[in-house]
Amino acid sequence: MTDPAILKQLVEDRLEKLLPETQGFADGEIPGLQAESMRYSLLAGGKRLRPCMLLKACEMNGGDVSEALDYACAMEMIHTYSLIHDDLPGMDDDCLRRGKPTNHVVFGVGQAVLAGDGLLNYAFETMLKTAINGRIGHENALKAIYAIARGAGVTGMIAGQCADLFAEGRPDADEKLLGYIHAGKTAAMFIGAVQAGAYLAGADEDKIDALTRFAEDFGRLFQVTDDILDVTAEADKFGKSKGKDETEGKLTAVSLMGLEGAVEYAGKLTESAITVLDVFGEKADYFRQLTLDMAKRTY
Amino acid sequence: MTDPAILKQLVEDRLEKLLPETQGFADGEIPGLQAESMRYSLLAGGKRLRPCMLLKACEMNGGDVSEALDYACAMEMIHTYSLIHDDLPGMDDDCLRRGKPTNHVVFGVGQAVLAGDGLLNYAFETMLKTAINGRIGHENALKAIYAIARGAGVTGMIAGQCADLFAEGRPDADEKLLGYIHAGKTAAMFIGAVQAGAYLAGADEDKIDALTRFAEDFGRLFQVTDDILDVTAEADKFGKSKGKDETEGKLTAVSLMGLEGAVEYAGKLTESAITVLDVFGEKADYFRQLTLDMAKRTY
Repeated sequence: MTDPAILKQLVEDRLEKLLPETQGFADGEIPGLQAESMRYSLLAGGKRLRPCMLLKACEMNGGDVSEALDYACAMEMIHTYSLIHDDLPGMDDDCLRRGKPTNHVVFGVGQAVLAGDGLLNYAFETMLKTAINGRIGHENALKAIYAIARGAGVTGMIAGQCADLFAEGRPDADEKLLGYIHAGKTAAMFIGAVQAGAYLAGADEDKIDALTRFAEDFGRLFQVTDDILDVTAEADKFGKSKGKDETEGKLTAVSLMGLEGAVEYAGKLTESAITVLDVFGEKADYFRQLTLDMAKRTY
Repeated sequence: MTDPAILKQLVEDRLEKLLPETQGFADGEIPGLQAESMRYSLLAGGKRLRPCMLLKACEMNGGDVSEALDYACAMEMIHTYSLIHDDLPGMDDDCLRRGKPTNHVVFGVGQAVLAGDGLLNYAFETMLKTAINGRIGHENALKAIYAIARGAGVTGMIAGQCADLFAEGRPDADEKLLGYIHAGKTAAMFIGAVQAGAYLAGADEDKIDALTRFAEDFGRLFQVTDDILDVTAEADKFGKSKGKDETEGKLTAVSLMGLEGAVEYAGKLTESAITVLDVFGEKADYFRQLTLDMAKRTY
């Protein structure tokens, strides 16, 4: 099994090369500003978690990582577009992302909308081109792209973002809504990643189901630990929770279950995620370690 | 050959049915607000020109219109998303579209961004699902979706929108840039439509090339006649051009070539578009008529 750090580097190198090189205002060229604004956010670093999950899901099912690479990069394009649009005024209105000014601060709101649109569309352009020309069977390629589209879609990531907008400052928001937001904003893309990787490897439906259940638990764990850290990180540094200021009115696992309840929930998700990986034996070590590392954030 | 009015009705009926019906905050459901904001703009009427072009390109090459219907609807979803995002503050900042308040006026800027994102993504979800389950061969289905993705993409429609933002109020904007904007904003999606329809019918590359050249001319004609009408429609009503106020500083065919030059250019495009259709004989009557109707707008 390939070292995750090597997979991450493969993704970085390929992302760097994927955007059309010929920039300008001639036929078949991409406007310089469009390319620049897309690259600004796409190449701003990050863990490349979703692409690596896709590649590992492919590899552990006997697939060819190099054939899956463009699909992995497409996942990162979709993730990046969602961050750009999430940061816009009218959405979260954030000025900083990964320590750099957000896309609309640098390129203006109009161009930031187009940068996000461009990344989403280019993710599909990239996958479709590879699906037509690559060595993976067309049916499996179609299923992989569809899995990613659903994860990013109106019952997946976009659903989570819409529900998140809807929930803001609502006193009647409940656990069901929180679960929906977590499932949509995070789990859906993880599910898309592992399903796509498995389809590209030609895995059977049993394996795909197991990976789907894993990604669902892992996605929820990711969000819960985030919510916990929002409170405890501040508590560590200043001896008191920031729950009463910045996170006020925000629907989180902690606001609903209390800190203790959220930590307990994280524990259950960790156990469930690890258990479902049993069918893969040691081939699933990457996902096992990922889950344990995530769980560790809470204590 | 099916009456274009019947094709349009097929598109209307299918669009109405395509969005997921189960709305709410449970697994696999779409948030009500997300569905509502997407439907608001998608079902607001319009000529359904791009879907009809796709269906006609399919039919004239011997393809099955019912198998192509979801791809046609996906084109309209992409067209609609581009209008929603185009109307946003930071872009054109328009309050009215087809006589109704624009999406962000009704649903807020954040939700309008998500409505557009949702329509773009759902276009791909729709096509991929049909490609997996439909009766069209997977390779032709992939080529059709890829043609649409390219038309909508960073060297197609998005490129045109970026160049349009870039050109606003620039004194150094020239004919080359105008051509690029026209090709991107309009011709690219027409090209995507006819290519996709032809691929879905299994047409050979010669036919696809001819349709591509037609769609390019027709797309430019569409934009030029729009530019001409911006001037002459006002001239008709008020006896003077509005060129000096609302269209001031805007790069158009008229601002570059003068009214007479633009009309002459429209004539050349019409002739060229009609000529390229010769290889299809009377099967191309729909596209021939479309071109003549478009040309008529200028006199």
